[in-house]
Amino acid sequence: MTEKDLKALLSDMSLKEKIGQLTQLDASCFSEEEGPVTGAETELGFSAEDFPYAGSILGVVGAEQIEKLQKKCMEKQPHHIPVLFMADIINGYRTVFPIPLALGCSFEPKEAKEVGDVMAKESAAAGLHVTFAPMVDLVRDARWGRVMESTGEDPYLNAQMAAAMVQGIQGEAADYDSHLGACTKHFAAYGAPTAGREYNTVELSERTLREDYLPSYQAAIDAGSAMVMTSFNTLDRIPATANQWLMKDVLREEMGFQGVLISDWNAIGELITNGVAEGKKEAARQAIQAGTDMDMMSGCYMSQLENLVQEGTISEDSIDTAVLRVLELKNKMGLFENPYRSAGTDSEEKNILTEENREAARKVAADTMVLLENKDHFLPLKKEEKVAFIGPYAEEKRMLGAWSFFANPEDTVTCREALEEKTENGVFAKGCGILNPGQTVYGFRFNMTNEDSEEDTEKMIQEAAEEAAKCEKAVLFLGESCLQSGEGGSRGDITIPEVQKKLLRAVAQANPNLAVVVLAGRPLDIREIKEHAKAIVYAWFPGTEGGHAIADILYGDRNPQARLAMSLPWCVSQVPVFYGEFPTGRHVEDGEQIENRFLSRYTDMPNQPLYPFGYGLSYTEYSYGEVQADKQEFSAGESVQVWTTVKNTGNREGTETVQLYITDECGSVARPLRELKGFQKVTLKPGEEKKVCFTIEESMLRFYRADMKFAAEPGTFTVRIGADSRTENRVKIYLK
Amino acid sequence: MTEKDLKALLSDMSLKEKIGQLTQLDASCFSEEEGPVTGAETELGFSAEDFPYAGSILGVVGAEQIEKLQKKCMEKQPHHIPVLFMADIINGYRTVFPIPLALGCSFEPKEAKEVGDVMAKESAAAGLHVTFAPMVDLVRDARWGRVMESTGEDPYLNAQMAAAMVQGIQGEAADYDSHLGACTKHFAAYGAPTAGREYNTVELSERTLREDYLPSYQAAIDAGSAMVMTSFNTLDRIPATANQWLMKDVLREEMGFQGVLISDWNAIGELITNGVAEGKKEAARQAIQAGTDMDMMSGCYMSQLENLVQEGTISEDSIDTAVLRVLELKNKMGLFENPYRSAGTDSEEKNILTEENREAARKVAADTMVLLENKDHFLPLKKEEKVAFIGPYAEEKRMLGAWSFFANPEDTVTCREALEEKTENGVFAKGCGILNPGQTVYGFRFNMTNEDSEEDTEKMIQEAAEEAAKCEKAVLFLGESCLQSGEGGSRGDITIPEVQKKLLRAVAQANPNLAVVVLAGRPLDIREIKEHAKAIVYAWFPGTEGGHAIADILYGDRNPQARLAMSLPWCVSQVPVFYGEFPTGRHVEDGEQIENRFLSRYTDMPNQPLYPFGYGLSYTEYSYGEVQADKQEFSAGESVQVWTTVKNTGNREGTETVQLYITDECGSVARPLRELKGFQKVTLKPGEEKKVCFTIEESMLRFYRADMKFAAEPGTFTVRIGADSRTENRVKIYLK
Repeated sequence: MTEKDLKALLSDMSLKEKIGQLTQLDASCFSEEEGPVTGAETELGFSAEDFPYAGSILGVVGAEQIEKLQKKCMEKQPHHIPVLFMADIINGYRTVFPIPLALGCSFEPKEAKEVGDVMAKESAAAGLHVTFAPMVDLVRDARWGRVMESTGEDPYLNAQMAAAMVQGIQGEAADYDSHLGACTKHFAAYGAPTAGREYNTVELSERTLREDYLPSYQAAIDAGSAMVMTSFNTLDRIPATANQWLMKDVLREEMGFQGVLISDWNAIGELITNGVAEGKKEAARQAIQAGTDMDMMSGCYMSQLENLVQEGTISEDSIDTAVLRVLELKNKMGLFENPYRSAGTDSEEKNILTEENREAARKVAADTMVLLENKDHFLPLKKEEKVAFIGPYAEEKRMLGAWSFFANPEDTVTCREALEEKTENGVFAKGCGILNPGQTVYGFRFNMTNEDSEEDTEKMIQEAAEEAAKCEKAVLFLGESCLQSGEGGSRGDITIPEVQKKLLRAVAQANPNLAVVVLAGRPLDIREIKEHAKAIVYAWFPGTEGGHAIADILYGDRNPQARLAMSLPWCVSQVPVFYGEFPTGRHVEDGEQIENRFLSRYTDMPNQPLYPFGYGLSYTEYSYGEVQADKQEFSAGESVQVWTTVKNTGNREGTETVQLYITDECGSVARPLRELKGFQKVTLKPGEEKKVCFTIEESMLRFYRADMKFAAEPGTFTVRIGADSRTENRVKIYLK
Repeated sequence: MTEKDLKALLSDMSLKEKIGQLTQLDASCFSEEEGPVTGAETELGFSAEDFPYAGSILGVVGAEQIEKLQKKCMEKQPHHIPVLFMADIINGYRTVFPIPLALGCSFEPKEAKEVGDVMAKESAAAGLHVTFAPMVDLVRDARWGRVMESTGEDPYLNAQMAAAMVQGIQGEAADYDSHLGACTKHFAAYGAPTAGREYNTVELSERTLREDYLPSYQAAIDAGSAMVMTSFNTLDRIPATANQWLMKDVLREEMGFQGVLISDWNAIGELITNGVAEGKKEAARQAIQAGTDMDMMSGCYMSQLENLVQEGTISEDSIDTAVLRVLELKNKMGLFENPYRSAGTDSEEKNILTEENREAARKVAADTMVLLENKDHFLPLKKEEKVAFIGPYAEEKRMLGAWSFFANPEDTVTCREALEEKTENGVFAKGCGILNPGQTVYGFRFNMTNEDSEEDTEKMIQEAAEEAAKCEKAVLFLGESCLQSGEGGSRGDITIPEVQKKLLRAVAQANPNLAVVVLAGRPLDIREIKEHAKAIVYAWFPGTEGGHAIADILYGDRNPQARLAMSLPWCVSQVPVFYGEFPTGRHVEDGEQIENRFLSRYTDMPNQPLYPFGYGLSYTEYSYGEVQADKQEFSAGESVQVWTTVKNTGNREGTETVQLYITDECGSVARPLRELKGFQKVTLKPGEEKKVCFTIEESMLRFYRADMKFAAEPGTFTVRIGADSRTENRVKIYLK
């Protein structure tokens, strides 16, 4: 349809119909046979008779189901406007890729794009139109459960990943036929809840919001994200969903977002529990006036907006603006022409869980696993070595992450299955459950309980240790449950469950030739693992092909190249801990001047995390040459080339992730100790050396100055190029 | 002198002399015999020949020493302007009172005033003019070491205490002859370092800064605080000491501070390490232009300001403004007339460490000790009971807190000394050292090391357990070292040292009839103590008369009445945890709806602290009647009386701390779940009942609205009156 057609349609719609377009209901409001469930009681504040007016439905998947439901709904919608079908496709529909935090560790936007592409194609084949992804919230607190859905602690890396994910999900030139619309979330700063507690208040200065938190949203918007979702949290004590400054001044005007802004689940209704609206009517008024176009499942719009317009509190124009955005999106996706998309074709069969998709998931998963330790070249394993593979994750299918609702865990390749493809010399033992005996973790759609008794567990641990003792090497597969992270998964204790620590100690005592593979949805405190293990692979939740990817890494068929997208804390007492901290007046490096009390540190633990941002090893080694620059001084219009050489000094091919950090030595406000400003992957054969060059321009040095102008200031900048955020390989340049 | 005289003096001073008045040097720059140490090398950036120009000296105490030094300095100062002598007198000069955090727990501004009064009188007798107190920084993170120097987490309580301390220190009508000037610190928000790490960056919105952090400074300024000190931290990434908005717009113009603003130690110099000044000259320029009058020990003013004036970067007028403030303060204190104050009299003898002062310290200390548990009326002890008094604090003199430089630990009454005055039925055992065997904590002026071997410690623990087994009851005196809190004392592990946990377990096993007295400078995670003890007394660092006060409490000669001024966290993973949190959209009470994952909580620990703000028991019990109001609706010009009855239902007299909390149920911004708005002490005989009444006015309901105006909004307010911040005893009122 043309814009004119859309406007004509709009002008022909009743107010109620319009408000319907601004309403998203979930699958529970519809049945496959009947379409909208009518006559049912509802807590939404309006009659179920009005369900057919809903402009969008969330949580229904499957080409056939969506086709049927689309037909039923369109029949009942006065203008037969197609419904927009959305769902939470976060790291895969049926072919599940590693969780987003793992993906951040790939330091490879191309792979993020590939993940987006595959998951969008699978989901589009399953009839969906828009996914609630990517989540681009910056996060620096490992207690927060939803850290698994973020790409980490760094504004620059997050922005790269955000753009890539949007491009992947939406396809080249927003090719919606085979792709989805992206719904970037959660605007804004959802990732900074006080004390890491889910949904908690966010306390940030405007400067920090703008400088650290907004860039990833901006990148997603610039990449064309069709939609944006509001965040649950308050910002400056005003809930995002009702925050006019945030949504109108910042998101729309400054950041240039022109798509559809949807609330998070019931976030409009929660304006009441947030204590800023006295009832649904006031909640609806605040949300629509803040510019929230679509109401996800609170019912406030459907039950209140009509009244608000009729009494003149809000104008019908403001409704029209929002509705037009929704219609435009549906039109852009071709829904008016083809409301059923791929339904009735063999698209699902052809596109979902294909060998090709599995191959992609396997490769990406391997590229997200961070090798943290590898003493005496303990890894890779050799096929002829007798190895005991032990632990609750050795044969676990639930390593998909908390958001894989639509995947079938049965499709997962376990570590055991994959390892048995590699070697005949493996023996396997579970050792213990993931959770402590008797422990339950509540999830969405399913819970997890360890029903083993303490006694049985003791026996399993002992048996596992005995197996380990008989082998040359042991590999433990440990970690938190996939339900211990994800939304609502905040933890105070960020270690592996106690029972697994017992297993670790028992196995380490039985056989100190030990590697540990960690499965997790967050940075864990793994000090005790470090103490016992010769090698550590941080595998996150690796997805459907996780077992293959882990086996590929363990046996060296893939050489690790991932880097931490988030610092692994020494312990929970450090959080928030992140590399981009500020100098303070009394900065000190760990271990220095321990007799001087008056320095910025803890008296009983290091300031630095156990492993820093950007850190990760390989099965080969690299050496770096000096950092050099083609000029020492430059002006705003010029650029500086900085480079170093990287040499593979080991004996196998590998891909090194070369990182560029810049430090603004002095500014009108305190500047971070380091800021990631670039990275490059360089693949080197043994003995091979390459020059790695970065271009530095004035635009890369901009920040929010004391006067809140976003601009660079003349002065000295230290440029570091190295293997992680602690590198001291550097050169100084001067901006005139 | 008249203002005219001061101005004449000013106009007669050379620029260098003026800058001298803006310079504070410490004791190391002077010798008793010679006065200013000249000819010495200096790191201050200017010649020691200029030391005589210093307007203020810090850290010298004693009437005779100060008299001598004052004479020497005045001789050498061209206009014979007397020096302002300052020192860190925080909770006492020689008679040491409980640490400020304990004082907060008294919920008794009168006692804070008394502490200020006594410490000022002792210090004035010792020749001092101004103390670097009170510290009124709001703090919600128990990791921070300097929490001991704050009065806690609550804006209202802190403001009451801040005003009282200033009034006490400065005397009625700023009676400087026998009192001191107060220097309120640290402006602003020093108490909110990221991750509780000393000196770390502060991340706050302007709204939170204004609403939660500024009220205590404002109260101190309104009480007439002679001086204010800048904080070390950055705020909005700009160091406070160079923050023009903070110092000029907020402190001077909005808050009306007219006194002398001094930097913290070397804070001007640290503008360089903070990364906002490229050198001392720029640091000096920023600080003076921000309105920092006096430079503590960086030397930047003395070495740079002259140049800056001569080259026209800053005006001599701005120097004059600062100098005039310094001269006015000296004049107000009567130093021009009497530069030696009490020197040469018997003032020290008469005023310092008197029986009266000791009595005051003993009473105040008892009133700051929080009774956390008392199962089966375990306490008070009876004199005829055979009791084993065990633990490293049973006979420790260092329970004065980290800031008691000028006190003599030998003056401390230990628990043992005091308990032996109470009973002949006590046996004593150390059990173990405060720190773990071999552990050292670095301090200022002294360090602490536990030199006991592991083996000796094991033996001591065993012996202690054996003593406990022989007695009817055991009382353990446990806690952190006084050097584990205080400036530079940030801790990641906020429990008692491991060796004491071993002692606790051994003694509890030997005799479960166990009470624990906790000595600490911060809220500790005392879960394990709670598990084992029938009674817990949180005694903080109680000062010179700490032993007596503890014995008074243990034997019931004083009935506990203190309340927590800071939440005691369940564990470090909760921090920051405080009662005045915000509702979020998905608030949940601990224990509720455990199967629902999507609520604002941790999955593995409670949201609530182990003991909440305002909590504390007594040896008697109280019951509360319903809360009533004299009207349900009121207008801005009116007031509402709300009241309840409190009855002593136990069998001994006691003083209950009745607390008023108000909740603004709905606002243009999210409002705290509760806010303390009043408290009253009511003393009741057994069976006695009193009506406790509070007056609520519109002014108490004001806050920074969405539009940043400080005003109340019409609506419903829930008024709770009860024994602590968790009370549900309430009535609703409505502001029209």
